[in-house]
Amino acid sequence: MVRTIELNKRQEQILQIVKEHGPITGEHIADRLNLTRATLRPDLAILTMAGYLDARPRVGYFYTGKSGANLLAEKLKKLQVKDFQSIPVVVNDNVSVYDAICTMFLEDVGTLFVVDNQSLLVGVLSRKDLLRASIGKQELTQIPVNIIMTRMPNITVCKKEDLIIDVARILIEKQIDALPVVKEVDGGFEVIGRITKTNITKILVRLVDDDIM
Amino acid sequence: MVRTIELNKRQEQILQIVKEHGPITGEHIADRLNLTRATLRPDLAILTMAGYLDARPRVGYFYTGKSGANLLAEKLKKLQVKDFQSIPVVVNDNVSVYDAICTMFLEDVGTLFVVDNQSLLVGVLSRKDLLRASIGKQELTQIPVNIIMTRMPNITVCKKEDLIIDVARILIEKQIDALPVVKEVDGGFEVIGRITKTNITKILVRLVDDDIM
Repeated sequence: MVRTIELNKRQEQILQIVKEHGPITGEHIADRLNLTRATLRPDLAILTMAGYLDARPRVGYFYTGKSGANLLAEKLKKLQVKDFQSIPVVVNDNVSVYDAICTMFLEDVGTLFVVDNQSLLVGVLSRKDLLRASIGKQELTQIPVNIIMTRMPNITVCKKEDLIIDVARILIEKQIDALPVVKEVDGGFEVIGRITKTNITKILVRLVDDDIM
Repeated sequence: MVRTIELNKRQEQILQIVKEHGPITGEHIADRLNLTRATLRPDLAILTMAGYLDARPRVGYFYTGKSGANLLAEKLKKLQVKDFQSIPVVVNDNVSVYDAICTMFLEDVGTLFVVDNQSLLVGVLSRKDLLRASIGKQELTQIPVNIIMTRMPNITVCKKEDLIIDVARILIEKQIDALPVVKEVDGGFEVIGRITKTNITKILVRLVDDDIM
């Protein structure tokens, strides 16, 4: 079954000519191949439709540098946070480290977001933060999370319209597991979602299962 | 610039006809559209090249159920663990939970693999396992990791030739962060790599940057 665009020999020749001599008109391509313009029309149409070539009136065909694989990549680039985010789990900034760890286990998440009494984002707690605190000598029920959390303005946030690909880059570059999805409100950010490496991994699976594109 | 296959109205009509009536000959499609076979030839060629339609001699055109997006998905399905794995971090099964936590911080990983004196895989330690242990009342320097680790045969492993997509599915289904990449040796498994949701997230970024396909 045909599933990839397998170019035939003539289409490969056309591609080569346009790479070397583009922009070039259809007639000039035909001349180089000793064929008529009409004969080449379907091939040129296919190469253009598939994104290998682009054509401009009065200029001719030029090579886009693109391949079939880019078709999905272009769509992947447009995926937005709002369509893949998870529900955020938040704790108040006056709860203890012990309580935060319990919440993390109960909710089975790897990252907690810390909010103040106005429900504004003030901190982030990762498993790593909680593990670091837990090997200290202090009594975990006595330490409030706001002592150990990563706090504003050091928190990287995203908005629901942001691109998944940008979030993925941030997760990699900053070596973090999750970003809060926030909405700007008076005086700060309200947490409306959570986007994690698990969400990104699910997207990869869905790309293959073809239920995204 | 044309980068995705945007079907024109006639191509959409053809696709619809083949979906409903396929397998169907080019002539019958032309009849239904009140066009000549010659007029349709480029459109049929494009739809076939793009993988939407397939043609069999004496049978006609039929709908493949595929779209342009599948081009990349097909390649994505072939990616193997060995090309994307990270270096594993291992600890001996007689080290303490405290030492394991320190190793986790020093090596900055989320999962440790536990090996016996023959360097065979006997356990896995996640941040979650270590965090759970650390809120217990016991002295962490006195508990050996083999008390708290996930142990064989409950460990999911993968081989270097395994497919990334299969690993991604396992990470999602089993809700784990990392798999050990193992090699079968006499008496068990030797750990030769580590594959994590971070590796999968990096693959998604590389798909868009187009340096994989």
